[in-house]
Amino acid sequence: MKAEIMSIGTELLLGEIVDTNAPYLASQLPALGIDVYYLHQVGDNTERLIEVMARAWKRSDLILCTGGLGPTEDDRTRAVIAEMLGEQMTIDPDLEHELRDFFGNRGVNMPENNLKQAMLIPSSAAIPNPRGTAPGWWVEKDGKILAAMPGPPRELHHMWENEVRPRLRQRVKGVILVSRTLKVVGISEGAVDEMAGDFLAASNPTIGVYAKPDGIHVRIAAKAEDEASARRLVEPVERELRQRFGENLWGSDEESMQEHIGQVLSGKGMTLATMESCTGGLFASTITDVPGSSTYFKGGFVTYTNEVKIAYGVDSALIEKHGAISPEVAIAMAKAARLQLDADVGVGITGIAGPSEQEGKPVGTVFIGVGHEKAARGHATRYQMARQDVKVRAVTSALFQLRQLLVQLAAD
Amino acid sequence: MKAEIMSIGTELLLGEIVDTNAPYLASQLPALGIDVYYLHQVGDNTERLIEVMARAWKRSDLILCTGGLGPTEDDRTRAVIAEMLGEQMTIDPDLEHELRDFFGNRGVNMPENNLKQAMLIPSSAAIPNPRGTAPGWWVEKDGKILAAMPGPPRELHHMWENEVRPRLRQRVKGVILVSRTLKVVGISEGAVDEMAGDFLAASNPTIGVYAKPDGIHVRIAAKAEDEASARRLVEPVERELRQRFGENLWGSDEESMQEHIGQVLSGKGMTLATMESCTGGLFASTITDVPGSSTYFKGGFVTYTNEVKIAYGVDSALIEKHGAISPEVAIAMAKAARLQLDADVGVGITGIAGPSEQEGKPVGTVFIGVGHEKAARGHATRYQMARQDVKVRAVTSALFQLRQLLVQLAAD
Repeated sequence: MKAEIMSIGTELLLGEIVDTNAPYLASQLPALGIDVYYLHQVGDNTERLIEVMARAWKRSDLILCTGGLGPTEDDRTRAVIAEMLGEQMTIDPDLEHELRDFFGNRGVNMPENNLKQAMLIPSSAAIPNPRGTAPGWWVEKDGKILAAMPGPPRELHHMWENEVRPRLRQRVKGVILVSRTLKVVGISEGAVDEMAGDFLAASNPTIGVYAKPDGIHVRIAAKAEDEASARRLVEPVERELRQRFGENLWGSDEESMQEHIGQVLSGKGMTLATMESCTGGLFASTITDVPGSSTYFKGGFVTYTNEVKIAYGVDSALIEKHGAISPEVAIAMAKAARLQLDADVGVGITGIAGPSEQEGKPVGTVFIGVGHEKAARGHATRYQMARQDVKVRAVTSALFQLRQLLVQLAAD
Repeated sequence: MKAEIMSIGTELLLGEIVDTNAPYLASQLPALGIDVYYLHQVGDNTERLIEVMARAWKRSDLILCTGGLGPTEDDRTRAVIAEMLGEQMTIDPDLEHELRDFFGNRGVNMPENNLKQAMLIPSSAAIPNPRGTAPGWWVEKDGKILAAMPGPPRELHHMWENEVRPRLRQRVKGVILVSRTLKVVGISEGAVDEMAGDFLAASNPTIGVYAKPDGIHVRIAAKAEDEASARRLVEPVERELRQRFGENLWGSDEESMQEHIGQVLSGKGMTLATMESCTGGLFASTITDVPGSSTYFKGGFVTYTNEVKIAYGVDSALIEKHGAISPEVAIAMAKAARLQLDADVGVGITGIAGPSEQEGKPVGTVFIGVGHEKAARGHATRYQMARQDVKVRAVTSALFQLRQLLVQLAAD
């Protein structure tokens, strides 16, 4: 099945908004065995919308479009579909009723403009949208399918997952793709390539090796008639690769390093505390992005001055001797954090995010310390990038160091 | 002049990468007086690339495309342009020389594949790319222009700014657009609309009012033959609106709330300290995204447990009486932060990012306290969104509260 995705809205053409809807939908289609050939962003202009949509209707089997379902003059998706198919729009009494209820429940009279959202054509059925006022349209005609969904991502995602994807899954026959991504850290892309060696030449499943900010990703992708058969192709390769990568493998698919660390910490009943300088709290914030992190994260300090570092347990002589931006102080910050907050593991980060050098050390210099009563480790690095990117990379690097410490503690 | 933008690469169709190049270029064109009608993402497929490009060439005056200029088999942009225009590609000796030098300087033999990057057609000229191996193509024929630029954003941005934009500026005759966005907080969209009343009906400059996560944006946009004339249309309206919005206006254009706050704090020689619970350090991290924040930001606490809140100055009786998630504790956290770190202003944030309710309070409940020796204020809110979004919105809200406190202190 060939698909084409259209994102509708003049704001997309002004570059005011980056279209994340089309990539989101595109990323979902391979698993359904649907190929995507074109993504488009088109403005709220009837003529151009009809032109692009009519071409898509002719050459593709499936059109997914987002946006233009609102109540205003600019929202033209329904009218464009109706005109393209030569069908008449009428108000659906049930939809009108639901819509009036929606406003009524909020104690508001429905603006008459919103009546547009109760329109249907003979080939369309409404797709429920519990997160907004605009129902989607599911259109089937001449063996083709068109799904029109709302533009706001939280409405779109909900409608896609709960309504459109399940319906497509029933309709699509053919080859589907199942993939599993293994995430590896501490070995180079070249070394991973060698370790995966014999599998790299295979055609089903195929193996892809990618260098990413959080390490190396190894993607195993299999095609088959159905999901179960595709999984059966992936599994033995996954098992073998997991064994080869050993402790360098830390996660899979959408799992993040902070989630992985959270699982290890809660599995061992251990707690964490932090002391950050150049990352300004971003490490703690990343740790607390994980639901349930309050069970293992005790808290942290953002110590943006030497006085504050000293006040919370870093030895002033150490700062005097090595400078605040030094591996020694990073390790001392990690220790101070865990002692202050009575935590098992501490993380300390000190460095220069920019824009100017400090203590004669260049912008982008970052020292990371991670420590436990029984072991500590330091890491030095330098990032040649903008201030906010330095922060992000330093946080990723600190997550790795913390993960390595946890591996080491488990081995001891 | 009508433009159309194409982003080329199969990875865009798999949703592995979000295309930021097309929105970047689109956002640059209004200032040049160029209208954008279509953005497309197309895979590395010769047939489909020619189809889309030929249609664009026919209906638009300018095509900007990115990607597909690399050395591999998948990189087809040059060949597609040549085929569309019916011209023959040949190796340009100067380009070949430069390319061999590029590799030679790195002590590497040039892979023969890279010779593709030295190809030209009669209608194309090379556009220098100091950030990579792939020169761009500047094509002029039959009164139309096509610029093919590399896909990696840092190469693209450099080539656009230094080569393509200046050339277009010379070529484009006609009307250009200059805009200024004023950022307002503390008054509703409707009230801003009323205050801008008489200007809203004007056609040059036009006024647009937009509700955004960081308040209301008022965009003044003027069209004229040249930049100076357009600026002369914007200025009197800007001056008048600045006066009307008074202290509710906090910034303009790309300025962020954290930069604005940084300017106010350093202007007054005041310092800041924070104590965060549900935002987990994201507020401190946002404050420290601003270069130079070390002059006014002393540091902060991430107090993820009640014990840690109490250890650093929050009264345990207050927590017992009102719960840790309460306006009283938020204000106490702000006070504890500034007293602990000897800062002038403190910010406290407590709430429930999710996924489960606490103290019988629903997910998304957030209390913010901001305080100074002479004044304090609290703010309660509830966000119905995902954990990480709650954190982001709570940080924005805390920035507003801090800004309001600073306004109040200045007025006292």
